[in-house]
Amino acid sequence: MAEFVSKSLGEFELIARLTARLRRRTGTILGPGDDCAILRPARGRELITIDSMVEGVHFRLDWGAPESLGARSLTVNLSDIAAMGGRPTACVVNLAIRPGLDARFFDRLYAGLERAAGAAGVDIVGGNVTRAEALSITIALLGEARGGVLMRSAARPGDHIYVTGTLGDAALGWRALDGQVKVRGAARRFLIDRYLNPAARVAAGMRLARIRPVPAAIDISDGLWQDLGHMLERSGVGAEIDAAAIPLSPAYRAAAGGDLKLALGGGEDYELLFALRHEKSEAHLTKQLGVPVSGIGRIVRGRGARLRDGGAPALAGWDQLKERR
Amino acid sequence: MAEFVSKSLGEFELIARLTARLRRRTGTILGPGDDCAILRPARGRELITIDSMVEGVHFRLDWGAPESLGARSLTVNLSDIAAMGGRPTACVVNLAIRPGLDARFFDRLYAGLERAAGAAGVDIVGGNVTRAEALSITIALLGEARGGVLMRSAARPGDHIYVTGTLGDAALGWRALDGQVKVRGAARRFLIDRYLNPAARVAAGMRLARIRPVPAAIDISDGLWQDLGHMLERSGVGAEIDAAAIPLSPAYRAAAGGDLKLALGGGEDYELLFALRHEKSEAHLTKQLGVPVSGIGRIVRGRGARLRDGGAPALAGWDQLKERR
Repeated sequence: MAEFVSKSLGEFELIARLTARLRRRTGTILGPGDDCAILRPARGRELITIDSMVEGVHFRLDWGAPESLGARSLTVNLSDIAAMGGRPTACVVNLAIRPGLDARFFDRLYAGLERAAGAAGVDIVGGNVTRAEALSITIALLGEARGGVLMRSAARPGDHIYVTGTLGDAALGWRALDGQVKVRGAARRFLIDRYLNPAARVAAGMRLARIRPVPAAIDISDGLWQDLGHMLERSGVGAEIDAAAIPLSPAYRAAAGGDLKLALGGGEDYELLFALRHEKSEAHLTKQLGVPVSGIGRIVRGRGARLRDGGAPALAGWDQLKERR
Repeated sequence: MAEFVSKSLGEFELIARLTARLRRRTGTILGPGDDCAILRPARGRELITIDSMVEGVHFRLDWGAPESLGARSLTVNLSDIAAMGGRPTACVVNLAIRPGLDARFFDRLYAGLERAAGAAGVDIVGGNVTRAEALSITIALLGEARGGVLMRSAARPGDHIYVTGTLGDAALGWRALDGQVKVRGAARRFLIDRYLNPAARVAAGMRLARIRPVPAAIDISDGLWQDLGHMLERSGVGAEIDAAAIPLSPAYRAAAGGDLKLALGGGEDYELLFALRHEKSEAHLTKQLGVPVSGIGRIVRGRGARLRDGGAPALAGWDQLKERR
């Protein structure tokens, strides 16, 4: 343990690499290099979230480029800010490094992280590097919400349920990489790209937060069914979902046909699920939010979600779905 | 990888345990349970820091109680806020868990974390749980600074250098646990306690930030010599340190005699190192800051630190010290 407790020069170099790439937004008074970063107070309410990606659990290095990994580490956090309708502002990064990764790898990882941060208007204001057995990237992200804040708890019976984008692509993507799913050509490339390079719906979340009454929302990180379950639980309501309305990409259909299992339970979509008091057409919402939007069902009194399959209530509730996975 | 991507029920239980223990301070609008926590904006300037403790790198489970580990995970972050003169306010916790640890272990870990947070006035506003090969606890901590902010870069030639507490105790403590250092009785217990249960100098830091001109400061986490080096580098100055003035505890002397190696380079002290423009007596500062304070030298023009040993300049500069370890 002795050699671990004091930081080696190599680790200091990594910290310097990580933190030298600050893009200074107006809110950052002091970036990396001191004991803390100094920021101006949030305008409106402040949001904070933390998420972590661990090698062998959330990613494999042989599956994608280091740049994608860097970007995705931030995207999973951006998605949480998006789900509250906030504007992301600044983050701190904890990097756990393991032997066998060289400076070139970290340069590429940081390049991806920096690009994602720049695109989202986020300053990387601080970092910490530690050694570990496996590579992991943990990011705490701050944001601010000036108007409405989208909460899981705001769904009410009668609300109309929508999702952005298409579901299940990322889950199929990593299964394609893992050899569990056979799919070729453009469909394979699309699905893998959806897994490696997800987009957080930040702009859509901010636009959603302007609707009144303020919608309920959550991001779909663990799969539609599970995350819908969180919203229902927090709101004390139930839901009926129309199986035929679940948005599937052509690539999903090419790989999985009409099997909804991964669209409902696959995870890593980073799309938004939201509930509106007043019904709006998909076309209207797609234009308003700047992303494709699909209406998939209604909030009802009661508990849990039911999947309606061609009019007849299906049995695929929360527990049933869990067992199928 | 399949079974890792979706969270198991066990993980949800852990998240619930972790986040149910929120102590709500006035600044927390929404605690755990949504995509983000919602906070009121910081009063004054906002501080943020992130730090991580990894099993086998920063701690061993057989060396101390889970409660100590939980508290210490926060203390290392509190120390960063203390070093800026800030008031800690809220934190988010990322817990990477491994097989072989039971609910009782996590209950005790959280109890320690919660106690430390409560004592420091910090709300645990959010958490994330992931699986990993080794246990690790990563905390991002927010704080606010209403008056002066202590920075590493503020040291000027002629400044008087001080430290709080005694140095090297924690480094001796873990070496005693590891069998590298032989020490018995009360001295052994004291040194091990200093390693397992360090205190962050938060109140002292806040009081220090009221002094004008605002002092330079850094917390001693990597060892006096290394952290002094950071302050000197950021300030563009040098320092002369009086070896005889380095504060050593009776337990340190019992275990290491007059050997300053671990007091200078051992790390994990979490004491404050600071530089004042106007000299003050140790007694005055001890009373003013509420912790023992020792004057250990002066800031000088130039680069790097020199250790003056009994009047004659010693050779134990930065590089020499590194080689000795």
